[in-house]
This record gives sequence, structure tokens and C-alpha cells, in this order.
Amino acid sequence: MTASYRRLRLTSRPSGLPAPTDFAVTTEPVPEPGDGEFVVEVTYVSLDPAMRGWMRDVRSYLPPVGIGEVMRAGGIGRITASAHPGFAVGDWVLGFFGVQEYAVSDGRGVRRVDPDVAPLPRYLGALGGTGLTAYFGLLDVGRPEPGDTVLVSAAAGAVGSVAGQLARIHGCRVIGIAGGPDKCRRLVEELRFDAAIDYKNQDVAAELRRLAPDGVNVYFDNVGGVILDAALTRLARGARVVICGAISQYNAERVRGPANYLMLLVARASMTGMLVLDYADRFPEAIGALAGWLHAGDLLAREEVVHGSVEDFVPVLLGLFTGAHTGKLVLALDR
Amino acid sequence: MTASYRRLRLTSRPSGLPAPTDFAVTTEPVPEPGDGEFVVEVTYVSLDPAMRGWMRDVRSYLPPVGIGEVMRAGGIGRITASAHPGFAVGDWVLGFFGVQEYAVSDGRGVRRVDPDVAPLPRYLGALGGTGLTAYFGLLDVGRPEPGDTVLVSAAAGAVGSVAGQLARIHGCRVIGIAGGPDKCRRLVEELRFDAAIDYKNQDVAAELRRLAPDGVNVYFDNVGGVILDAALTRLARGARVVICGAISQYNAERVRGPANYLMLLVARASMTGMLVLDYADRFPEAIGALAGWLHAGDLLAREEVVHGSVEDFVPVLLGLFTGAHTGKLVLALDR
Repeated sequence: MTASYRRLRLTSRPSGLPAPTDFAVTTEPVPEPGDGEFVVEVTYVSLDPAMRGWMRDVRSYLPPVGIGEVMRAGGIGRITASAHPGFAVGDWVLGFFGVQEYAVSDGRGVRRVDPDVAPLPRYLGALGGTGLTAYFGLLDVGRPEPGDTVLVSAAAGAVGSVAGQLARIHGCRVIGIAGGPDKCRRLVEELRFDAAIDYKNQDVAAELRRLAPDGVNVYFDNVGGVILDAALTRLARGARVVICGAISQYNAERVRGPANYLMLLVARASMTGMLVLDYADRFPEAIGALAGWLHAGDLLAREEVVHGSVEDFVPVLLGLFTGAHTGKLVLALDR
Repeated sequence: MTASYRRLRLTSRPSGLPAPTDFAVTTEPVPEPGDGEFVVEVTYVSLDPAMRGWMRDVRSYLPPVGIGEVMRAGGIGRITASAHPGFAVGDWVLGFFGVQEYAVSDGRGVRRVDPDVAPLPRYLGALGGTGLTAYFGLLDVGRPEPGDTVLVSAAAGAVGSVAGQLARIHGCRVIGIAGGPDKCRRLVEELRFDAAIDYKNQDVAAELRRLAPDGVNVYFDNVGGVILDAALTRLARGARVVICGAISQYNAERVRGPANYLMLLVARASMTGMLVLDYADRFPEAIGALAGWLHAGDLLAREEVVHGSVEDFVPVLLGLFTGAHTGKLVLALDR
């Protein structure tokens, strides 16, 4: 008797927020690995705002997930069968395994992770894609100098919370923007930001004038929309705006462009897009640095692990867009 | 008997296009220079899209022209009286003399120009602010490499026509966007652009796909709006967008932000604002280079000199926004 497994396939392109009806679960027999392949039992699925973009049929940095294909996702799992010389049964591995209970891999883009060194979900967070995004986005694109004022949006989120702490580690004054008093309190009290702005209850532009009277030198943007426009009005001369994401716009039918973009001219500032995939050859350097700051207690990481099945992917993903979580959101596949 | 002169003062902040009723002419006696000052009879007034911004009461790189003040403008004139040791009667000088028939100056920001070296209006164009803007914007901010595809909007205009020719001189493939078949023909036939797109009669996005199948490495933007959005969809990886101006937006009540700005992320591209005033210490280098290319015939400059009085400032300025001119627009003050 062959075991079967469940796979979540994209069946239609969402309009606005993704809905469960945009996906279907198929049940198939767990495959045997071919020569040079291995089979992974997927334990943790990474949930990322960028996933919404992958569902869209537009030119982007990766091809869209095709209709009928298994939804793309980073994940962590354990090898249950291997015909690959470099990977053994029992190894814990990280890769783009998709939203499914098992995955077959030829090892490309896969690396081993060690549950004795860090909790496994952290390899999807501060020690994984989100930590690396914060590291290269802030340090390489934002280029903060000690004493700079650094502003981070979605600052309680997976990338933002790391970016803000890295700015603090680099001697900057850090202001975070987040939704709600609890998140803002956490930014200041736990993550040691210098200040926080609650965009749900405060006037972001007025708070920025008060908290950054000399302007913002680096703005690390994860949200776009009205918050990006407010930040643009407060740029210091020569400021760097890092475009890491735009979660407020991912479900919009029509993206709101930054109406204040001419402040780039007034401030002689730049706005630069970044993608972590471009820095792959420097991942070991970054992971070493991030692990060091984590170990020293300078960097605090948090993961929210939600237990469920592949059917729960959509409802859990929607929590990213409503701001229901702090830190890195991970779906643990129970079976 | 003391001679009198006319001065154009801003009397109200324009809404939309500036109107003659936003200004008033005052007639005053021509002053005598104080100690360390000189008096200039203004011959040529520079007309620049940026003037529309100076009429607005918003934070910018220069304070707005105050209500009741003489309209700010670059210009060229001849010294008629001097109590300044560095400037003599008869000298031709360049400076921010305003829209008026005479100006008093203490010499700050003023330099002498030589009508035997170049036609005087050229010191407001290719050898002046617009040439310098093109030089530093293209070369320092755009950083084109030989073989790059460079796209320039308002390419028949004062800044764009120089920027595109400098890109060609630097070994790039140059595409210009301009309004109407005559301007486009001139770009290709006279200024030796590789291609031109007539935004009034062609589909800019479709033409860009056809003319830049591998994408645009440098986009020098003078217009903003729908053309900026079209260009953003065609950025090559690592492209540089130079924000020099946004003439399509200067009279808008509400600026249209670039809805496609997330293509910066897809292309790992940057968008950077620039102001020529920041490069003042390198003006001699740039003017030397521009003069060399002009002399060699690699760079063609064109000025449109309209004769009139200070009352004609507004109607002539409006020609900038309707695209009535090519090259550098200058008002010659007749009396």
C-alpha cells in the first residue's frame, strides 16, 4: 500500500484577497525519488507577503505560479527517502518545497538545517529569507551610517523587526511604524527601537515631523501606499528609500503610486528595489552575522507557528494582510 | 530725470496653469548700485519648467517666490553701473536676475559670459543650467556604460536634447520620447538619436517593447505621469531612473504617482532625484566638456529666443507646458 499526500494547487488567479476557492487540494501517492533525487516530508511552510505576487500573471522576478500548479512556498522538512548522494534520510532541509505534505527535490536550492542550533522555524525567519532580506536590504541598499535616523514600516513584521534591530545594532536611531499599541509597545520595549508610530491610531506624518525633525536618512519600506507617501515628505538630503515590499498594495486592483515621489528630487534621494535572491553568494556571511547577533542577544527573533493542514494555507496567509501577527508567520503541517 | 524699469511680481499662487492675472507689473526708478553692488540691464530671461514649482508654497529645494516678490528667473544682462570691484560697466553677466528689466546684484552667484565665444542665449542653455543638468543627471546619476540603452523623455527639450546627445557621445543606444513627428524626426536626423517615440501619436509602451527588447538601462525622466509609468515597465535589471523633472505634473492639483514603481523591485532598479545646484563646484569641468563637444560638432544646441516684454513672461512660459518649442526657450526683453 502506497501512502498518499495532499498538495495545494492554484486553480484561479485571485482578484483582491486570495480566497480558498482559488485553490484546490489534490491527493496523490507519495512518489519514490528518481536517481539523484530525494523525498522530503514537509513540516513547516513559510508564509510571505510576496506569495500574493506569485499568484499574479505579470512579469516579475520569478515566473507566476501556473494555474494547476502546486503553490510555491519556502519550507522545511525531513528527508524520508533519498537516491541523492548529498542528502540522507533523516536530514532536515530548507528549500522551496511548496504548499504540500511531501516534495521531491534534486537538491538544487536546498540546504541542510540543524534543529540543535536553532528552532527549525527560525530558519524561515531571522536565519532565513526574511532575516537575509532585512540584512541586505538595510545594510547594502540602505547603507545606514551611525547616527542616521532609520525608519521601518511593518516594523513588527518578519522583515521589518529584523531590519530595525540591525539599524539599532549599527548605531542608528530607529523609528518603527506598526499597527496597534501592542505592536508599538513591543518595538520599543522588547526590540529596543527608539520610537514607534501606531499607524492605526496616530497621524503618521505628524508623528514623523515630531520624531524626525531633521528628516529620515534611510526608509526601509515594506508597505507602500499612504505610509510611503508620508515618509517621502520627511526624507533628509541624500536619503535612501529601500523598496522591499508593498503589502498594502498586493491585493489592490490598481496600485497607488507614491504621489510624493518628487520629494526624491527635493531631497536628492534615491528609491531602490531589492531582492534577496541576488545576494545568494553572500548568504553564509549574512547568516553568520545574524546568528552571532541572535546568540549575543542583540537581535531578538520571533516566530508565530500556526498548526494546520494545506487547506489552512489561505486563511493563515490572510493574517499577513490584516496584520494579525508579529514576527515570522509559519504554517506547521499536522497530519 | 531717472529712468524707470518694469518688474514682474507674483501676486497670487496659480491654480493649474499660471495665468497673467497671477502677476502684476510694477514700474520703478532704476536704482543706483550700493557699495559692492552693480546694476544689470537684463537682456535674456531663462524660461524653465522648474519655475512652476517656485510659484508653489511648499517645501522644496529653494524657498517659494513670495507673494509680491519679483518672479525668480535666470538671465543674462549687461552691467550699466557698478560699485563692485570685480565687475565693470559693459560686462555681460549670468545670474538669477528675475523677470525684470534691471537687477541689482552683489555678485553672488553671478559669472561673466563672453558673447564672442558663444551666442549669449546658449549660456542659459547647453552652456548653462540646462546643459549642466543634463551633464550631471545623465553622467553622475544615470551612470551610463557604453552599449547601454538610454531612454530620455522630453527629448526635444532643453535638458533632454543635451542628455540624449551626451548618452550617444558616451557610446549608448539612445531612444528619445517627444511630441509630434517633427520633433521626432529632428531627434533622429539632426541630433542622431537611434530612435524616437512620438507620444502624441504612438503607443509608448508598445514602442518601448519594440525598440528596447532587452530593456532600458538608464531612463532620464523630465515628464513623470503616464510616460514614467510606461518606462518603469521596461527597466533592465539594475537600471537607473534619473528624476530630473516632471513637467506633466507641475500644473496638476494632485500629482500622479508612478503606479508601476514596484518594477524597481522586479528590476532591482533605482530612482534618484537630482538638482544641478549640488554640483556647483564641478561646473567648470562640465562647461569645459560641453564646450568641447559643441565645438567638435558632437553636440548640437538650439535656442528659441522669443522677443517681448516682462508682460509676455506668462504666455511664453505656457509654451513649455504645451510643447510648442524645441531646445532652450529664452525671452529676449525688448524695450
